[in-house]
Amino acid sequence: MSRIKLKNISTRAPEKLNKEQIKKETQKLKFRLEELQNLMFAESKHAMLIILQGMDAAGKDGAIKNVFEVVDPMGCRVYSFKEPSELEKKHDFLWRVHKQTPEKGVIQIFNRSHYEDVLIQRVHQWVTEATVKQRFDHINNFEKLLTESGVVVLKFYLHISKEEQLIRLKERMSDKAKMWKYNEDDLKEREFWNDYMKAYEDAFAQCSAIPWEVIPSDQNWYKEYLIAKKVVELLEGLNMKFPGLKRQSK
Amino acid sequence: MSRIKLKNISTRAPEKLNKEQIKKETQKLKFRLEELQNLMFAESKHAMLIILQGMDAAGKDGAIKNVFEVVDPMGCRVYSFKEPSELEKKHDFLWRVHKQTPEKGVIQIFNRSHYEDVLIQRVHQWVTEATVKQRFDHINNFEKLLTESGVVVLKFYLHISKEEQLIRLKERMSDKAKMWKYNEDDLKEREFWNDYMKAYEDAFAQCSAIPWEVIPSDQNWYKEYLIAKKVVELLEGLNMKFPGLKRQSK
Repeated sequence: MSRIKLKNISTRAPEKLNKEQIKKETQKLKFRLEELQNLMFAESKHAMLIILQGMDAAGKDGAIKNVFEVVDPMGCRVYSFKEPSELEKKHDFLWRVHKQTPEKGVIQIFNRSHYEDVLIQRVHQWVTEATVKQRFDHINNFEKLLTESGVVVLKFYLHISKEEQLIRLKERMSDKAKMWKYNEDDLKEREFWNDYMKAYEDAFAQCSAIPWEVIPSDQNWYKEYLIAKKVVELLEGLNMKFPGLKRQSK
Repeated sequence: MSRIKLKNISTRAPEKLNKEQIKKETQKLKFRLEELQNLMFAESKHAMLIILQGMDAAGKDGAIKNVFEVVDPMGCRVYSFKEPSELEKKHDFLWRVHKQTPEKGVIQIFNRSHYEDVLIQRVHQWVTEATVKQRFDHINNFEKLLTESGVVVLKFYLHISKEEQLIRLKERMSDKAKMWKYNEDDLKEREFWNDYMKAYEDAFAQCSAIPWEVIPSDQNWYKEYLIAKKVVELLEGLNMKFPGLKRQSK
């Protein structure tokens, strides 16, 4: 398997694409997504775990809102991973993650995930390289457990350019509706850009049993289209059926 | 590594042992256990997970009460695994187990455990042999994750004879203080005794990275002594220290 090289992958949509047409396509995909989630909930044979990773301001929150707003919240949950709590730090790194995995019938979205434990923690050398290596194994084992238990796992990397990130961080400093998202650490983290790219590429390579989808994300309309398309494709592939009338249990 | 053969292992204490002397030893071990748990809680570098498995009436509840009664309940928890709930069944089999693992500073006792998923479920063929095989791998990976995260894992099999089990089940039918424990399924499960022995032996062999302790359990005084002794030995081996005065955090 060839290693993903992020700098060789465009962060933008192909030039020839028609933005308005793509937006219409996305709208159709979202309606189909709503139907499919309803079916998944009714059938209750599969679960879906969607992992969203990306640099600060890559558009994770927006992707969640704009793609999944149509879905019945009874069957779709979001969990945002922040810095671990004191209690979480006293457990293995997957303890808090495993708790949040979806039961059958449910789509669970991870806004960040267990991959932070081999990204930010590695970039800042809060953990040894030996620990990072162990964690790759544990992540692979964990994702295998989920897959074998009926969870469809999807891993998206929202790929933005360093230039686009700066534009967005500056917006957060000037736009009142976005200021709450501004965090002075974001600019500091930016200095580690190349280390992050290296850590991401290594995570893609080490944890590739479930392949990563690299989503060009400088333009939100294209990012949303690609995510909706991939999710719908996978759900269609499950060939789900409404279960019909339940037999009375004794 | 040689396979454990349960029928070759006595369920009784060696004849020459002096019961009264052993009981005094156990008392000493329990006081030491109390001290060591206090130290573990203060130091908060390690956790301990004690897995108790055994046939019905093997004396799991009694072992918990009589060995761990001395320990501060703030640092010692018991979780009894029953039939999975509807929600738990919609998750991978380790989901409900992982949630109950101990944080640093704590001894967690599992009264039954994830091993039921390769024992009762296998004996009754509620799962395929292929699934059982996958589960052995997942259990090994899971226990490795815990071990590498600072959890000392101990696995006890409480070994009673089929004859002793019958005596105890009959007591449950006649002794008012024990009737609440009687379950008519226990006598039915007894018919699968040999299948259970086979399933246990296979679980010991397939999940041997953390070795199993087979505890002769026909006599409670001997069982309690062996468990207390093993737990104290392992805790002593951690070379724990009181951490001294904490630095003020900023």
